[in-house]
Amino acid sequence: MDERELWRELGQQLRVDAVRASAKAGSGHPTSSMSAADLAAVLLASHFRYDFDDPRGKGNDRLVFSKGHASPLVYGLFRAAGVLSEEEFGTYRQFGSRLEGHPVPVLPWVDVATGSLGQGLPIGVGMALAGKRLDRLPFRVWVICGDSEMAEGSMWEAAEHAAFYELDNLTAIIDVNRLGQRGETMHGWDLSSYSDRLRAFGWHAIEIDGHDVEQIDAAYREAQTTTGKPTAVVAKTLKGKGYSKVEDQNGWHGKAVAEEAVEELGGIRNLTVDVPKPDHGEPHRFETSGGNWPAYEVGDKVATRKAYGEALAALGGDRGDVVVLDGEVSNSTYAEIFRDAHPERYLEMYIAEQQMVAAAVGVQVLGWKPFSSTFAAFLSRAYDFVRMAAVSQATLAFCGSHAGVSIGEDGPSQMGLEDLAEFRAINGSTVLYPCDGNQTTKLVRAMADLEGISYLRTTRADTEVIYSAEEEFPVGGSKTLREGDDVAIVTAGITVPEALRAADALAEEGISARVIDAYSVKPIDAATLCSLAMPIVTVEDHRAEGGLGEAVLAALAEGGATPHVAVLAVRELPHSGKPAELLAAAGIDAGAIADSARHVVQEAAAVS
Amino acid sequence: MDERELWRELGQQLRVDAVRASAKAGSGHPTSSMSAADLAAVLLASHFRYDFDDPRGKGNDRLVFSKGHASPLVYGLFRAAGVLSEEEFGTYRQFGSRLEGHPVPVLPWVDVATGSLGQGLPIGVGMALAGKRLDRLPFRVWVICGDSEMAEGSMWEAAEHAAFYELDNLTAIIDVNRLGQRGETMHGWDLSSYSDRLRAFGWHAIEIDGHDVEQIDAAYREAQTTTGKPTAVVAKTLKGKGYSKVEDQNGWHGKAVAEEAVEELGGIRNLTVDVPKPDHGEPHRFETSGGNWPAYEVGDKVATRKAYGEALAALGGDRGDVVVLDGEVSNSTYAEIFRDAHPERYLEMYIAEQQMVAAAVGVQVLGWKPFSSTFAAFLSRAYDFVRMAAVSQATLAFCGSHAGVSIGEDGPSQMGLEDLAEFRAINGSTVLYPCDGNQTTKLVRAMADLEGISYLRTTRADTEVIYSAEEEFPVGGSKTLREGDDVAIVTAGITVPEALRAADALAEEGISARVIDAYSVKPIDAATLCSLAMPIVTVEDHRAEGGLGEAVLAALAEGGATPHVAVLAVRELPHSGKPAELLAAAGIDAGAIADSARHVVQEAAAVS
Repeated sequence: MDERELWRELGQQLRVDAVRASAKAGSGHPTSSMSAADLAAVLLASHFRYDFDDPRGKGNDRLVFSKGHASPLVYGLFRAAGVLSEEEFGTYRQFGSRLEGHPVPVLPWVDVATGSLGQGLPIGVGMALAGKRLDRLPFRVWVICGDSEMAEGSMWEAAEHAAFYELDNLTAIIDVNRLGQRGETMHGWDLSSYSDRLRAFGWHAIEIDGHDVEQIDAAYREAQTTTGKPTAVVAKTLKGKGYSKVEDQNGWHGKAVAEEAVEELGGIRNLTVDVPKPDHGEPHRFETSGGNWPAYEVGDKVATRKAYGEALAALGGDRGDVVVLDGEVSNSTYAEIFRDAHPERYLEMYIAEQQMVAAAVGVQVLGWKPFSSTFAAFLSRAYDFVRMAAVSQATLAFCGSHAGVSIGEDGPSQMGLEDLAEFRAINGSTVLYPCDGNQTTKLVRAMADLEGISYLRTTRADTEVIYSAEEEFPVGGSKTLREGDDVAIVTAGITVPEALRAADALAEEGISARVIDAYSVKPIDAATLCSLAMPIVTVEDHRAEGGLGEAVLAALAEGGATPHVAVLAVRELPHSGKPAELLAAAGIDAGAIADSARHVVQEAAAVS
Repeated sequence: MDERELWRELGQQLRVDAVRASAKAGSGHPTSSMSAADLAAVLLASHFRYDFDDPRGKGNDRLVFSKGHASPLVYGLFRAAGVLSEEEFGTYRQFGSRLEGHPVPVLPWVDVATGSLGQGLPIGVGMALAGKRLDRLPFRVWVICGDSEMAEGSMWEAAEHAAFYELDNLTAIIDVNRLGQRGETMHGWDLSSYSDRLRAFGWHAIEIDGHDVEQIDAAYREAQTTTGKPTAVVAKTLKGKGYSKVEDQNGWHGKAVAEEAVEELGGIRNLTVDVPKPDHGEPHRFETSGGNWPAYEVGDKVATRKAYGEALAALGGDRGDVVVLDGEVSNSTYAEIFRDAHPERYLEMYIAEQQMVAAAVGVQVLGWKPFSSTFAAFLSRAYDFVRMAAVSQATLAFCGSHAGVSIGEDGPSQMGLEDLAEFRAINGSTVLYPCDGNQTTKLVRAMADLEGISYLRTTRADTEVIYSAEEEFPVGGSKTLREGDDVAIVTAGITVPEALRAADALAEEGISARVIDAYSVKPIDAATLCSLAMPIVTVEDHRAEGGLGEAVLAALAEGGATPHVAVLAVRELPHSGKPAELLAAAGIDAGAIADSARHVVQEAAAVS
């Protein structure tokens, strides 16, 4: 079979397989797969370089299906590559199958989960950045995008960053099948609406007929010889191509089509393609000469955000695989300390938080260890990306600075008040909230070895160092800072000093308050909490919902403990003011803590 | 004073005032204000139409500072308009002042809070849409944008929608001062990088010197005579313009400058501008002929998402102020039922969730009542916009469909599992989670009268109607579906039928289980929960963190109740499969509920 015939036959096979898989499952997205089948066939047969036996291999090209709903096409490709049996292919969408409704990395050849549209291209930017700046290998990143998802702003963050970083190793293949889920897209088949925009963003763009295999092949060749800029292949296609009953018809998105389509498509084929392996040599490694870990004197003052930056720079000195990304606020998060120490491993993401998180997902696919930072409030901009990163089983470390009302005059738009709730709810996450410099240092070091999504919450203000530099802070632990039996104050971060001051005031009144620093918010130190035979006051510079207080309540419930608990947290809309004024107004300063402690102690006395 | 001299003098006054305000506060963003001062001065003096005595007036032009950190400039404009006294102007950033670090609608002339970059322009798109499609008045929307924030994808969602909807009533003024927070932007002073992109997106773009008042005036005139497309005024400016020590210098972002700048700027001025009032006549009103409210038969099956769409259409028949937005999934959320009934009040937002939420914020400024919907999972894409909408004290109703593992085969990327945590943590929010069609109907009707952010969680599957159409469901209430004294099962939504089945199974074993439908997750029915003198099992198709279980625990703690509570929730990464398989795998189906109930009952017996 000559190459052109192979392309055409393979395209038909992929269509047939999409129909078969979805028909058997009774659901799925065959029509969205059929439009992109020729684009995928030519790629697999003649351009893709990949070692299916070593999917983590650093020289491999990467293929991302940004339009993840075209999963039957993804699985059809793996079948065509000879790595997926017909038997397993038939398990599509069944419970226990690796072939889920949208691709997930349970399959070794899937790098990242897609299905939330607009994420694949920005993740591809991260992979291409890794290829250019970190691994320094000439692998290519191919991203198959839908036309509907071009409406997501994140696609334009990706367009901007890909051009700015001159990612000529990145090719976006845009499957312009005209039809979204519920009707026509904004631009229908106006290919120039996409290519003009992308060219204005600095891309090379090629418009083709996405069912003409020779045009597809020529475009891919052109992409590979274009230097200094990424290439977009903007392909006019037909949704449901090849089955006359559904081809270019609205109303067939996400619906299985009848097996009768197989006949019209020329029947089942069993072509396999021998995908050539890459041979690029070894990836670049960054030499390191040891980290200069900070040690703060007890009683000195340092902001936890600053300690984050200093620890990060030290970590980068120990480990050449650590990479740092920041959203144009590195002089606030102090990621700039890492940038100045290790400029080659610092990726400026400008004010594009979605692209920042997506790039981190992309670079960790290649084995790098990304730490990403911005204000805690602005990580909420990328929450869908964090959520999906967990589905991707990605290992990512985040730092959110400027948490809570304690930031002061900048006001509520800049205050991270929902971040503990956000990150606690992420599958398999770790949530850490240090109160001083030495604790921050140890927690940053610990994050480097954690799997999954980890989050460090830092604060703006300088705070007193209360722990010696020798103290250890295991994830899942806590520190009892003050012993006491009448009431326990459980807190973390900026309110730890407030709790200590409250305990002092209470001691003068004869109330003995235990103070527990629950720096590990998730997993929380359930054993310590459940052993408390006294009423509890929890305190946090965060909204009451989903924060430390509820984490404590959940741990107590899980352990069968039933003490009285008062939850002090932010319950109103804060304003601008001095930090101390705002902590007082929110009812989370030393005075409010002491008041609450007195109240629960009196209640306990009345009961007993 | 002739007009040109007024513009120049007013520009200098605005600079002086930015310096004075920040110097007194000891913080703030004077340099970011100084770059845009001439742009603002010409606008206020010669183009803006606004009744400062009637800021809610529908004919008013709207001015949005997308670069909200330039708040000294905002307040300087209000002083120049004669509505802010010198005394109040001096309270900038003080606790209790209306002049917060970033603008908030505590001031009557501020429509929306800004400060999270990239939000002002998409909100302006919503206001301009309201002007074109809803109010049908020729007011203009002026948005002053920073150049750094053009890196946010949401700005390009706005660019796309503004062009698609031909919003020639919208003018974006881009203050290209070259310098971001920590250094130069991607494009520096390359004005064409912005204007080329915007033109490719379908805008009219004008490049000017942003300190040449005549060029500014001409550009604003051109914007007002351009039809069929929005206009961008791309202005080259100097950050810190007018004070030689800081002008065009890096390192002065967000820092107060010395009062000595006032002298260099020519001293304090006290110009006031008499801004002309608009005279546009009355806004359009949509006629309504009464809603056809659905009533489902007990025992029939209907998905809550479908009931949402039907109720929404009925609501639109009762109230002409109800507007619906959807993110290109209206055939899944069933917002299409409203669209078909009231096409003029339906705004298709395509797959651009950030723009969807921002547009909703914009239209509610004009007094409309927006309901916005997409999959619950994809509302996470716009979480920063929801967070900021609460700071804006906006009234917005949301519906997130396809909640939980019960969606089945589509897999985890499409499952809303963090949405309760997200929306509970929003200041002043209401969170509702119905289990049947009639309950959904009543809750949708209730949402139309709620203030602030309200959220309705709907599910994909058809579920049995268990309530009569006459039943009422007050916000903050609950329903006891089954009486019992051994254990209480507290749940909502898709797991209500599971709880009822569990109660049946338990009854056969002699365990009397109360079943409570906590459809109002926030505010939750604390009185009912605290009155339960029995162990409790909570059940939810949502992550354990921040969901219904923790809401129950928080309510019990607040009320001083200390029963044993077991929290059943999603604690692992789900996969594809049949809904029943996935509910079982997550441990939230009838069998798991019964097991947990048996366990807590045995424990309680062992204790007593």
